[in-house]
Amino acid sequence: MGIHTDMAVEAHEYFSEKNSRIPSGGAKFLEKPIGTYITFEAEDLRGFENESSLQNRSFIAREIEKLLEKNGISDSAPILVVGLGNREITPDALGPKVVSSVFVSRHLFDHFPQIKNADLRPVCAVSPGVLGTTGIETLEIVKGINEHVHPKCVIVIDSLVARNISRLGKSVQLSDSGISPGSGVGNHRKGLNRDSLGVPVISIGVPMVVDAATITDNIFECSVSMLKNASEKQSKFYEMLSEMKPFERKAIFKEALSGITDELIVTPKDIDETVNDLSKVISAAINLGLHKGDISGYLQ
Amino acid sequence: MGIHTDMAVEAHEYFSEKNSRIPSGGAKFLEKPIGTYITFEAEDLRGFENESSLQNRSFIAREIEKLLEKNGISDSAPILVVGLGNREITPDALGPKVVSSVFVSRHLFDHFPQIKNADLRPVCAVSPGVLGTTGIETLEIVKGINEHVHPKCVIVIDSLVARNISRLGKSVQLSDSGISPGSGVGNHRKGLNRDSLGVPVISIGVPMVVDAATITDNIFECSVSMLKNASEKQSKFYEMLSEMKPFERKAIFKEALSGITDELIVTPKDIDETVNDLSKVISAAINLGLHKGDISGYLQ
Amino acid sequence: MGIHTDMAVEAHEYFSEKNSRIPSGGAKFLEKPIGTYITFEAEDLRGFENESSLQNRSFIAREIEKLLEKNGISDSAPILVVGLGNREITPDALGPKVVSSVFVSRHLFDHFPQIKNADLRPVCAVSPGVLGTTGIETLEIVKGINEHVHPKCVIVIDSLVARNISRLGKSVQLSDSGISPGSGVGNHRKGLNRDSLGVPVISIGVPMVVDAATITDNIFECSVSMLKNASEKQSKFYEMLSEMKPFERKAIFKEALSGITDELIVTPKDIDETVNDLSKVISAAINLGLHKGDISGYLQ
Amino acid sequence: MGIHTDMAVEAHEYFSEKNSRIPSGGAKFLEKPIGTYITFEAEDLRGFENESSLQNRSFIAREIEKLLEKNGISDSAPILVVGLGNREITPDALGPKVVSSVFVSRHLFDHFPQIKNADLRPVCAVSPGVLGTTGIETLEIVKGINEHVHPKCVIVIDSLVARNISRLGKSVQLSDSGISPGSGVGNHRKGLNRDSLGVPVISIGVPMVVDAATITDNIFECSVSMLKNASEKQSKFYEMLSEMKPFERKAIFKEALSGITDELIVTPKDIDETVNDLSKVISAAINLGLHKGDISGYLQ
Repeated sequence: MGIHTDMAVEAHEYFSEKNSRIPSGGAKFLEKPIGTYITFEAEDLRGFENESSLQNRSFIAREIEKLLEKNGISDSAPILVVGLGNREITPDALGPKVVSSVFVSRHLFDHFPQIKNADLRPVCAVSPGVLGTTGIETLEIVKGINEHVHPKCVIVIDSLVARNISRLGKSVQLSDSGISPGSGVGNHRKGLNRDSLGVPVISIGVPMVVDAATITDNIFECSVSMLKNASEKQSKFYEMLSEMKPFERKAIFKEALSGITDELIVTPKDIDETVNDLSKVISAAINLGLHKGDISGYLQ
Repeated sequence: MGIHTDMAVEAHEYFSEKNSRIPSGGAKFLEKPIGTYITFEAEDLRGFENESSLQNRSFIAREIEKLLEKNGISDSAPILVVGLGNREITPDALGPKVVSSVFVSRHLFDHFPQIKNADLRPVCAVSPGVLGTTGIETLEIVKGINEHVHPKCVIVIDSLVARNISRLGKSVQLSDSGISPGSGVGNHRKGLNRDSLGVPVISIGVPMVVDAATITDNIFECSVSMLKNASEKQSKFYEMLSEMKPFERKAIFKEALSGITDELIVTPKDIDETVNDLSKVISAAINLGLHKGDISGYLQ
Repeated sequence: MGIHTDMAVEAHEYFSEKNSRIPSGGAKFLEKPIGTYITFEAEDLRGFENESSLQNRSFIAREIEKLLEKNGISDSAPILVVGLGNREITPDALGPKVVSSVFVSRHLFDHFPQIKNADLRPVCAVSPGVLGTTGIETLEIVKGINEHVHPKCVIVIDSLVARNISRLGKSVQLSDSGISPGSGVGNHRKGLNRDSLGVPVISIGVPMVVDAATITDNIFECSVSMLKNASEKQSKFYEMLSEMKPFERKAIFKEALSGITDELIVTPKDIDETVNDLSKVISAAINLGLHKGDISGYLQ
Repeated sequence: MGIHTDMAVEAHEYFSEKNSRIPSGGAKFLEKPIGTYITFEAEDLRGFENESSLQNRSFIAREIEKLLEKNGISDSAPILVVGLGNREITPDALGPKVVSSVFVSRHLFDHFPQIKNADLRPVCAVSPGVLGTTGIETLEIVKGINEHVHPKCVIVIDSLVARNISRLGKSVQLSDSGISPGSGVGNHRKGLNRDSLGVPVISIGVPMVVDAATITDNIFECSVSMLKNASEKQSKFYEMLSEMKPFERKAIFKEALSGITDELIVTPKDIDETVNDLSKVISAAINLGLHKGDISGYLQ
């Protein structure tokens, strides 16, 4: 509908602009499934060692705990962590990178019985790849693994598309409504949710790109407000622009863009570092949120 | 048994030394399952552009075709390619790297009906990770995917442990007997084979490491032959050494090593490049062996 | 001037639009130093193995040879290859990646006298990093090395900023006028050229990003032409837009963007692969252009 | 002389075994230049977040400060950090990886005068590559940069070859005697020291590999002690072995190995992670040791 965002908070903003009020039946209207959505924003989200980074991690961990509790998942229930995305496309690599830093413990329960007293739970983790590199729908792979592993909950991590460039790499969205078809940088075709997997699905997403139509619109909006005080000819431009509804503009840009290419992404210049840093923060938060006991003795 | 090698040709050599003849009931004695084993050796296996590299690839592709034919797999039958190993340990990353260069076509058959006339077959490919990073037995993951994808054949690629350092990065072993438990650099606990997966399993392996006990023994053997013509005191050493049976020596070294560490590997200095180069060669050979039609139009 | 492009061909186009003719004194007007500029475009520039990719490489190699000849560099004259850019920012990593595949021979001339009969020249290659990660101006590092190595010519490779998204990853610009201050993805502050280095400087650049103001303008232009045939209200929008001169529009967008962030880049989605593939193509072309003799025996 | 180690503490041990006492004129005899050598060992050297890892970093930082002080380098004197080694060979990549995490500040002094009150010093950092990939002696590159940058001290980081496998990834050697020719995993031909660079050179090295002859000897020694209590035939073997002097044995193994290949290295299985983790620890220690002021505001 002329807007592409994976962030509930943005969908809400957008429809607010458009309609001045959110209608009832909100979930459908927002094109987001019903459930709890938490958006956490922090300027210094990428940091790892200072005081505020410890607070960031604790906050995210606490939200994971709350979502588990809300969905009736006990402290010892086994969990499958799924890192969505293509590790060979930098802004889409968040999921696989988080998975490679998540502490996996499921196999230890088979071989070290004493672990049962350590206040840990069985956690396993996979990066299923994307349709374009595996030839298999992500949902099919996750279903197959799910049927052999029997977790009580699935946690999925994904890179998101945002509408507002100022959110890139600076927010985390947590939800218990799963991943919708068509969302994420990699565009999942089939949803990963309680319906398709049979257990609660908690998603953790970070906005990493905006699409090219969005950036155009963002710049456009800035142009409009910038031109308010400008000279005569520009004022005429302003008048024109300000008459258009945002969603009309965006639709035009989107159509125009399809004439060029839809294979462009807009990312922060330092996206490689951003993804590395955030994958550390999120995996640390997951480790903290999933285990009451101390895992440091099991790490390198 | 005092020997660790994943290569059938080496197991054969070893038992030849030890027993001067191979007993009947060979497969069990060689600790290798029954099936066809092909070992292809080439000094310039890593090259990609010259004449002989084209021949190398064609040879490997032809052997894949023969194994498919021998196992009754038709030209249009769907195939699942599985890259075993840990992509974060360089010499173990061959499988995942091959998979990322294999041409996957399975999803195209759903969306582009005209592909059915292109003399291609549906191929899909996954890198399931290793027990230590997923918490799940590789076999369980592959089984789960297999049950959703229903291929007629599974092709697995793995880094192997060799006994002879001169083979590192210079041989390819093809087989239709699957992957045995305990083999590979990553030590798979459960076999991937026709019994466990229900379809033929073709394995493609390249020796990438020798273990530390093996390198000791290799050097030892060289020492012995070197000392044949040496001075008096050294001759006494030689006499002593040459009295020992190889398997006795190796057993001693292996036990000694366990007193130090079993976490050491011996690799060529340029292992990073070796793995990159060989993954290109093997994925090209797989692409050639699996499709009669021309795939170049589908690649970047 | 409301335009950011490192490509001479685009600067030319831009000023053509604006002024309908290029004034004399072109170089200064184009903000490009005087010299030879060759722009080579090919849809399949990234390919490596097929017929047309061999032609691409040969073409680029031949242009390198011509620029060397034009600047009086003999076949045996030593050359320093410099890979500009930050290897940790994907679209800026082209230079360092090319350097890591360039065949270096300078040290062989010291140790293997027989190489003098092989029709090769002494080539050395460095990746000096960028100001932000070294704390040193690139020019200072290159000067220091240059003074010890004494090449007869310096070849620099760099990622460029383009104005037209359809050129990303699809053109190569060769020139003998060096690298200008402020150009490249990494924004070099001081020029690398014959003046600063004392020897001819040949540059090889590939457009890898467009800036966010450019993409806005690109989409805008498409919007305008798209709206030509549109409905009443949109026509009014069209009328307005088409009245504006391109450079006015672009200046507005640029200013608007500075209110958001200047740290965004627009790249193809598959930029990681694009950079890898093109670095292979360009290093192969350099190897071909610099040596009359056969280097294949020295690789591995 | 039958021993290859870059670690002063091991050279000392070795000659102790051989001669029961260290002769006077120690430095020459140890094949190590005169200067201060500090070897810091810690089982958990790789950790980054817990209490003891903070102590490890502080300890290393304090030793850097002491070496600077001992060599008369003031708190505001500019420093050049040099990461030796080949970033494309995993165990040799420590130096380049440390450099990419060192806080560089030299360029900030030019552009932000207020930094002069922040109790920081100008630091710059380069990774010059290795002879095999640049065609230029590392010393020549560092000299050239040194002559333009004029630091008061050079700090070099390098991967070392150890004699004892139990030290791999678990020790840090600091010294103010520079880097000797022939040392390091990459085998530098010409020394980087006060003589060649004109300023004090502080080296920070971590043992990352042992050579194949060393591992053989290590296993051999274990075999000998293991066999002390063994059965008759093995005792004869033991008797034989224990009669040989260690340096005789090692010489034999070394010669034998040269008959096979000298291109093998022995590393811990998890070398990729080890190098990543240690580069973080050492760069953090360098940042701490070089600046009295707080750099956290300048980092991401």
